[in-house]
Amino acid sequence: MPLEQRRTPEVAQVVGQLGQLASEAAIAIAKAETKQKNAALELIATALEQQQPDLLAENAKDMLAARQNGLKGALLDRLELNVSRVAAMIEGCRQIAKLPDPVGMVSDMNYRPSGIQVGKMRVPLGVIGIIYESRPNVTIDAAALCLKSGNAVILRGGSEAIHSNMAIANCIYDGLAQAGLDANCVQLIETTDRAAVSCLVRLSDHVDVIVPRGGKSLIERVSREATVPVIKHLDGLCHVYIDGDADITKAIDVAYNAKARRYGICGAMETLLVARDRASAVLPKLALRYQERGIELRGCDETRAIVPGINPVSEADWVTEYLDAVLSIRIVEDINQAIEHINIYGSHHTDSIITENLSHARRFLREVDSSSVMVNASTQFADGFEYGLGAEIGISTNKLHVRGPVGLEGLTTQKYIVIGEGHTRP
Amino acid sequence: MPLEQRRTPEVAQVVGQLGQLASEAAIAIAKAETKQKNAALELIATALEQQQPDLLAENAKDMLAARQNGLKGALLDRLELNVSRVAAMIEGCRQIAKLPDPVGMVSDMNYRPSGIQVGKMRVPLGVIGIIYESRPNVTIDAAALCLKSGNAVILRGGSEAIHSNMAIANCIYDGLAQAGLDANCVQLIETTDRAAVSCLVRLSDHVDVIVPRGGKSLIERVSREATVPVIKHLDGLCHVYIDGDADITKAIDVAYNAKARRYGICGAMETLLVARDRASAVLPKLALRYQERGIELRGCDETRAIVPGINPVSEADWVTEYLDAVLSIRIVEDINQAIEHINIYGSHHTDSIITENLSHARRFLREVDSSSVMVNASTQFADGFEYGLGAEIGISTNKLHVRGPVGLEGLTTQKYIVIGEGHTRP
Repeated sequence: MPLEQRRTPEVAQVVGQLGQLASEAAIAIAKAETKQKNAALELIATALEQQQPDLLAENAKDMLAARQNGLKGALLDRLELNVSRVAAMIEGCRQIAKLPDPVGMVSDMNYRPSGIQVGKMRVPLGVIGIIYESRPNVTIDAAALCLKSGNAVILRGGSEAIHSNMAIANCIYDGLAQAGLDANCVQLIETTDRAAVSCLVRLSDHVDVIVPRGGKSLIERVSREATVPVIKHLDGLCHVYIDGDADITKAIDVAYNAKARRYGICGAMETLLVARDRASAVLPKLALRYQERGIELRGCDETRAIVPGINPVSEADWVTEYLDAVLSIRIVEDINQAIEHINIYGSHHTDSIITENLSHARRFLREVDSSSVMVNASTQFADGFEYGLGAEIGISTNKLHVRGPVGLEGLTTQKYIVIGEGHTRP
Repeated sequence: MPLEQRRTPEVAQVVGQLGQLASEAAIAIAKAETKQKNAALELIATALEQQQPDLLAENAKDMLAARQNGLKGALLDRLELNVSRVAAMIEGCRQIAKLPDPVGMVSDMNYRPSGIQVGKMRVPLGVIGIIYESRPNVTIDAAALCLKSGNAVILRGGSEAIHSNMAIANCIYDGLAQAGLDANCVQLIETTDRAAVSCLVRLSDHVDVIVPRGGKSLIERVSREATVPVIKHLDGLCHVYIDGDADITKAIDVAYNAKARRYGICGAMETLLVARDRASAVLPKLALRYQERGIELRGCDETRAIVPGINPVSEADWVTEYLDAVLSIRIVEDINQAIEHINIYGSHHTDSIITENLSHARRFLREVDSSSVMVNASTQFADGFEYGLGAEIGISTNKLHVRGPVGLEGLTTQKYIVIGEGHTRP
């Protein structure tokens, strides 16, 4: 029998057992007091401090194996833990401890004509499965967010980070146990068998939602195979539209920042749209700034007439998330054509208009169908910390449940609560 | 080639085209003004009034065919339209026109330390697919709710109601056209080929969510086959727990109403739990009332010692949604055992505690993991109208996105909006 087939039933059994343990622990963590959850987060932070030498030693094993397997620059860098990265993990835990607890929050409580009071209470989702790649810090970030939001979590990290992840998980178990919480509410899948992912995403009896964090191929695979609902984080093909009524200084500053601050994040602008009226006032100066920074520009014919010497843009560019020092530029007729371009070619992630015209701002906010729509602000603000969520587990490109940066609230749901005094329905 | 295989590619093409048209029309309906959507709903109501003779004639065709195919009592009754049912459809349209428009509602708008303002705007989901069975009134209810919430809708009714549904759809098209809205935002699948359902639930390029309305087998089939997210409405296995600190009069009134008002709705109580302390004070009187109403009681051993002569309950009863004049009764130790019973055997739909004890009420509200959790109120209140949603498209048993009665808000989502004055991210 081929190895893959022989292993799969065992893996299914292992993952099924983790699921069973997690769903049992979910009941306890859902009703844990805020004080106790915060104490656990502080104790996990302390464990990370104390066990730092061990973490770094275990990480060194992963790094050695990765080098032997030929992993290159960026991938190796993601895998590496060092003193400052461990310090950031510890700080992250402590920040999440300080965030308000979303669980139990009651809203919209109203008396109805029948006399009953009806409102909503925010409650945990139950069991969250996180599937991620090489960065070991996701182990602690995800566990801390799930713990604070009252959920049990099943973590499935990349096989190349398995020693690091197990060492981090040990700190988590220690912190949970010291706080008197059920350590089963955090489960790490220790097998590196790829079949474990397929098992996890179909464990609908025990898992309430899957959050994949990683490259497009991982997310597409998870979405294809999952029977459990998935909170996806797909492409960020973001636009800035410089309107005919844009302030030129704001336009140049924002459009430059949206591209040049960081290329590799999902909120980076990939396509710049400029209203024909403003093109000659804005593009020459802006192009110069991009070029000084070493950004390759690709323009439509009209753009190339204003900024000579740049490369022509192709239809394929409009749908490409470069995540690199490349920018495509199109001159559009007006806001109508800009909105149409964004809704057709964009990925519904984050798009911004630069304008002083209130009617244009109002239309853009309503009609652009993206998870974040901005006015006179850089698309690079699309981030859980910047939005005040405190921390994020990803940026959802789903329409259902949660759209945009996903923090503690996105890991919860609302149930209805009804209070009467013996009310019966006529 | 067998007929089924020959037809499927054609059906896929037809459904794909409807999806394409719906997703194009979704852009227009999403930005339609409230006034225009309300006018369309009023004009649809008028069209239903004017075309009532035609509606009844088309329905008569369906009824005749159904009788010839041997359809029985309850199924025939669901299919039937008459003057009062058409009047209810018309009234429903007018009520939805009067509800507040959820689209564009901005909430949680705050200034962030960076100076940007961040908030959320409520927006339509896009294209909603509704799959339902014999009741033709769902055609108009679903279309009206989707229209008001700014969504395009693809309707797939039962084949036995096809003439009725087409006649209702004609009224909808007339109303939309008279209001100057794109009639493509409501699409009725006219083929009665069952393969159309399989095509629709996998049309993830064009459909944002599927809402199945009907029996368990339909909902399970849709959930199994769908790649589009599904808002499910599954079992309602509801409990009332009479606590040790319950007021006896309230306990008897509420527990009677929760079962006896209507048996066949998902909010009907199926299992009564009684704290040992209150059992002998409550059960004899309550059992008498149930028995006078012809309700069969099935009790645990302790219950049968207090109410002699009733049938014994089996393990299978705890997980059975009778939807009938049958009630299972268990005497429990205390609130802990009650909560445990509900979370293990229940369907997470609606559960109520009867108590005067604030701590018990507080624990029950937090720890019972159901879409509606109640204190001193009948489970039969679980309903969109009673909760103030105005109308509902179903009661979601999902945890993600929306839980409990789904009204206009459940058919929308929220995007982030960000407003700055040329803000760039440091």
